[in-house]
Amino acid sequence: MNNPKESPSLHTPCSDPRSAGTVALRWQGARLELLDQRLLPAQEHWITLETAAGVAQSIHDMVVRGAPAIGISAAYGVALAARKAEGDDWQAEVKMAIRELAASRPTAVNLFWALQRMERVLEGCVALDEARQRLEGEAVAIHEEDLAANLAMADHALEAMGLSSGNSSPVSVLTHCNTGALATGGYGTALGVIRRLHEKQLLKQVYADETRPWLQGSRLTAWELVRDGIPVTLNADGAAAAILATGEVRWIIVGADRITANGDVANKIGTYSLAVLARHHKVGFMVVAPSSTVDMALKSGAEIPIEERDGKEVREIRGIALAPEGVPVFNPVFDVTPANLIDLIVTEKGVVQNPGTSGMHGLFG
Amino acid sequence: MNNPKESPSLHTPCSDPRSAGTVALRWQGARLELLDQRLLPAQEHWITLETAAGVAQSIHDMVVRGAPAIGISAAYGVALAARKAEGDDWQAEVKMAIRELAASRPTAVNLFWALQRMERVLEGCVALDEARQRLEGEAVAIHEEDLAANLAMADHALEAMGLSSGNSSPVSVLTHCNTGALATGGYGTALGVIRRLHEKQLLKQVYADETRPWLQGSRLTAWELVRDGIPVTLNADGAAAAILATGEVRWIIVGADRITANGDVANKIGTYSLAVLARHHKVGFMVVAPSSTVDMALKSGAEIPIEERDGKEVREIRGIALAPEGVPVFNPVFDVTPANLIDLIVTEKGVVQNPGTSGMHGLFG
Repeated sequence: MNNPKESPSLHTPCSDPRSAGTVALRWQGARLELLDQRLLPAQEHWITLETAAGVAQSIHDMVVRGAPAIGISAAYGVALAARKAEGDDWQAEVKMAIRELAASRPTAVNLFWALQRMERVLEGCVALDEARQRLEGEAVAIHEEDLAANLAMADHALEAMGLSSGNSSPVSVLTHCNTGALATGGYGTALGVIRRLHEKQLLKQVYADETRPWLQGSRLTAWELVRDGIPVTLNADGAAAAILATGEVRWIIVGADRITANGDVANKIGTYSLAVLARHHKVGFMVVAPSSTVDMALKSGAEIPIEERDGKEVREIRGIALAPEGVPVFNPVFDVTPANLIDLIVTEKGVVQNPGTSGMHGLFG
Repeated sequence: MNNPKESPSLHTPCSDPRSAGTVALRWQGARLELLDQRLLPAQEHWITLETAAGVAQSIHDMVVRGAPAIGISAAYGVALAARKAEGDDWQAEVKMAIRELAASRPTAVNLFWALQRMERVLEGCVALDEARQRLEGEAVAIHEEDLAANLAMADHALEAMGLSSGNSSPVSVLTHCNTGALATGGYGTALGVIRRLHEKQLLKQVYADETRPWLQGSRLTAWELVRDGIPVTLNADGAAAAILATGEVRWIIVGADRITANGDVANKIGTYSLAVLARHHKVGFMVVAPSSTVDMALKSGAEIPIEERDGKEVREIRGIALAPEGVPVFNPVFDVTPANLIDLIVTEKGVVQNPGTSGMHGLFG
């Protein structure tokens, strides 16, 4: 339900990204509130969670999505587990919750990274009260650091694009999926860069892939950009090549769910296609993600487990059959873009140009 | 409504393509029946038309789609106009109907080609009775020739693929949109080639792009292939690149709405993207279309008018909002694939390899 009382700041223009604008999640001390992204753009409905199991289910069911927002939600889930834990086995209980949360989505490495941070804090605690306090503090820190990282990434990206000076003319860009405030602790990764371009009057137009099958582009990115007054044109994923052929778009800017030690990037299905098209049309291809997305333990994208979801996501929409019942579907959630098709990987720690093993080790080794 | 009485042969396996299997249109002498493809796969509903205006509206509204099926329907529309025409102005009336039919869709050249054939017959007629008879005969001939052309194209394609001998192993292919019996007078163009591969046990698997925004792949191709027992796996358009990256697919096989004198091809939006991906992955890219699709009056794809349709096709599905109301949409129906990305253009007249101006003139000049 559209309940403005629950989200007083949602219709405020986002001038200071720390204080206003769209958010995906709200921590209320004893509970986590998640905006149910499955119902957007038709309904703004918030789900209130008081258990780690509820958070894990919400991540699995994609109430919340976007690698950074998943990591932050999971961290709050651990804090909730500590609140509920009792008796001598409290530490085992919290650990079990961490394992449950880790099993909610297989590809997003921020999830495991955030849970490792929480587990390290847990292991340093002797008393339950101490654990409750420190785990909540750690989750809030993960959330705040993510927002700060997004702002830093936007700065780095504009500099790497050669657009940080005042004399540049506005550019058009194309993006895929949703990497905005709804996917992160606020502001956004790839969409944060686009937001910053707009703030600096360097943005002509964003083309947003609708991003089948889950339609994050139509449902979330278009919603977020319209709300924040950023000029957006929506397109079917198959129209991206025709847009690039016109020569209008200078950069394709996307997020990442996992980046390996050689600079390969797992991101929403359809990203790899855009990278091939960008190279063919001599358009820049930029990946923007927090350093928590980087998994130096994996040598290359071939080692990334790729989540496949139910074929119903392609066969149906809101219960309406789009295809014959039971027809087999290939429905991977992510694909792998090889490093050699990527011009820039932008993180809060800095930028890797033409990524490869040495460039990645220089920044993350 | 699903009314099996109206379509007695629809559940018959398609062994002889001339006598059975899926059809998009039926000529009943005094009326044209069109399968309403907007309602598939949920409903098999036939629309009965007795006027050219009704046929033009049905083409515009995409009750019938697919360049060859549009041309055939328009030809029958002219025959219907002659049936209704009366008095001294009968010839002017039929000519007006031809103009109305020509305005129904802008890109498919078969439409204009079929109408020119009908107009030439009309101009050769002195009496109305004669015109009625000869125009109906010409429309039936256009229909029958299209089916025969599809069968010839399938032969040519298998030979060009080096698969006409008995010793080849089965291949997997990927297709886009619907180019089957539903798009033609029967059997299909690109899907006709795939049908022939299956008949000769040379087909391992068809991957079918769902083909946003109109979902011809999910709604029509998957439906047609499931019904005819041809192994199909559906995928979101953005997943095609990930499929090609596995190395399983040997050919991408698509249709065409217009082919220009230099071998450029206008086809369903998303086709150009596949051509770029095919080249990147060293996968063959084949266009299959009747010679009536070739428009030697246009030098290159830059001269093809590209139809844009209402953004609602991307923003909504069956009245359900997928995106914020009124968000701008770029919704071209077709894109242009340059000849240099095409390996084979297959028509009933023969095959052009690595098409260019000289190869095209050799076959169609």
